[in-house]
Amino acid sequence: MPYKAISDIGEFGLIDRLSKLVEPTLAEAPSLLKGIGDDCAVYRISENALQVATTDLLAEQVHFDLLTTPLRHLGSKCISVNVSDICAMNALPSFALISLAVPPSFSVEMIEELYRGMSHAATEYGLAIAGGDTSSSRSGLVITVSMTGETTDERITMRKGAKPGDLICVTGTLGGAAAGLKVLMREKNIMLDHLANNEPYSKSLMADLQEYSIAIQHQLLPAARPDIVRFLHASAITPTAMIDLSDGISSDLRHLCTSSDAGAVIFENKIPVNPQAREIADELQEDVITWSLAGGEDYELLFTLPKEQRETIEKHRDISIIGEITEKKSGILLTDIYGMTINLGDIAGFDHFRR
Amino acid sequence: MPYKAISDIGEFGLIDRLSKLVEPTLAEAPSLLKGIGDDCAVYRISENALQVATTDLLAEQVHFDLLTTPLRHLGSKCISVNVSDICAMNALPSFALISLAVPPSFSVEMIEELYRGMSHAATEYGLAIAGGDTSSSRSGLVITVSMTGETTDERITMRKGAKPGDLICVTGTLGGAAAGLKVLMREKNIMLDHLANNEPYSKSLMADLQEYSIAIQHQLLPAARPDIVRFLHASAITPTAMIDLSDGISSDLRHLCTSSDAGAVIFENKIPVNPQAREIADELQEDVITWSLAGGEDYELLFTLPKEQRETIEKHRDISIIGEITEKKSGILLTDIYGMTINLGDIAGFDHFRR
Repeated sequence: MPYKAISDIGEFGLIDRLSKLVEPTLAEAPSLLKGIGDDCAVYRISENALQVATTDLLAEQVHFDLLTTPLRHLGSKCISVNVSDICAMNALPSFALISLAVPPSFSVEMIEELYRGMSHAATEYGLAIAGGDTSSSRSGLVITVSMTGETTDERITMRKGAKPGDLICVTGTLGGAAAGLKVLMREKNIMLDHLANNEPYSKSLMADLQEYSIAIQHQLLPAARPDIVRFLHASAITPTAMIDLSDGISSDLRHLCTSSDAGAVIFENKIPVNPQAREIADELQEDVITWSLAGGEDYELLFTLPKEQRETIEKHRDISIIGEITEKKSGILLTDIYGMTINLGDIAGFDHFRR
Repeated sequence: MPYKAISDIGEFGLIDRLSKLVEPTLAEAPSLLKGIGDDCAVYRISENALQVATTDLLAEQVHFDLLTTPLRHLGSKCISVNVSDICAMNALPSFALISLAVPPSFSVEMIEELYRGMSHAATEYGLAIAGGDTSSSRSGLVITVSMTGETTDERITMRKGAKPGDLICVTGTLGGAAAGLKVLMREKNIMLDHLANNEPYSKSLMADLQEYSIAIQHQLLPAARPDIVRFLHASAITPTAMIDLSDGISSDLRHLCTSSDAGAVIFENKIPVNPQAREIADELQEDVITWSLAGGEDYELLFTLPKEQRETIEKHRDISIIGEITEKKSGILLTDIYGMTINLGDIAGFDHFRR
């Protein structure tokens, strides 16, 4: 019997199989409310206090390219992607642990630069870096951040819980991170071509990146949305379901619907496309809707709410209502600007093992 | 100004510098009792409940060699090394998160084998694997486990707190893990030599590893000591200070003494040397005391207690009293079997960045 390649079953197929293997460990953990299968694990720490916990690993050449990523930005991004998972549970972050595997080529100053970015971001988010582990690496840089946050029984929001008729909301703008990555990769390839041909390369040959700075910032310095969590708390709104947009709506809305046993319809003309992403897509003759739905790394929040809360939500300038939860049997659909309906699953999200 | 190589300042020098960079993040975390600088971070989660949290990263070719390490054993070891950090706080483990960076050469079955080891160990330790992150890797396998545990104000034990006159205790036997590694590396080199010379290599050429099985087990399947933590709880004993032996007494006792602002003297003839490590050292003409003091990876517990508790501790067959805490100015000393006193610091422990 041949062994199965991970690419045959993909990241989510693998997670399903690993979940089954860890099930026996959950038998004696009555305080665990949610294990694998949401943005965070959730467990009770006292009568009405819940803790959420998440971990994210970023590996060189998979998640980042040091040719196009300043170390300080990278440090900040590692913190933000974890804060985003905490926010997706309607919780706020409290503590982080940092594990680093450091290649021999790294100097002390380079690691300090990475940590400066982490420390700055942590301070902005109001969370403490409480510890970690530092080791050498025989290959690339690998950064793992694990993070805990706190919330209550009233506020905790999972991927499950969305009901037919609920509004589907998304924060911020989408497609910026994907557009920024395209610009950075184009510049990198021009530089590598010059080097490969032994041609001199200097800053004067670089495109003026200033005009792409918003998209590049979305890629290199994404911001998580604890401000939205605070707004929800202040408005006494608990979403019926929530997920963060790490892989893209096409993939993340599917996770939310699967967990909620529901379907969805979203409208192309309601998608809050990042204006600079649109310009870059025009320039590169690519499709900005694909970037917005499946580009990933926007780290915005996608959540659902009963219709009665439309008025409160509409007051927030940075939240868009993009569609509605439906019955499961209707599937997960996108209505395009011509009124045509297509299966959202046909726009593929990011999968680490299927590139 | 030239950049500083990490090997110039070592792992602990690097940790000192990174600690300073994260200090600003601690300002708004009044519930944090201990950040960087102990086996775990410690924070208050309710009036008399403390949570401890740790993370450990294991990288291929740095911490393990897949030529000599079965994946199931490796999975178990990843859990044990974190449980050991939790035990070192006099706490018991509750939840773990697993992050994996998986090389393209890995099949689904290999990852499942790794997870079977993790799941088995977690069940043995009574902790739940609550989540994680799985990604591809462009280089080797990297595994990060982060783990939380629970304890109380009365029980929490840190590296600081040892007082002159306190007994220094160690659990189990030492040097087994280092001896096991030596045997495995010898076998690996014999195999690689055969392959390099195009000579056939088969199991019949391997040394009979059965006679080294205890030492090999100490290396590949180390066990953390929650049983000792339970014994301490049952005996109503809270050590004055504790650390786990990951790098070796020579390095870990120094950490405990530095945190406690104290000195120490330990006696060579009291060191519980693993009997099989002694046989292997004789065979390889190496020094078993160096393995026992500086070989690392034994994952036993080193702790200190007031002299009044000698009687209770002596009843436990698997705890040895190896010395005594002294004033800081006396230094950290080893009295050898001839009564000569040497500086324990001259026997170097393991440092990832100074191999």
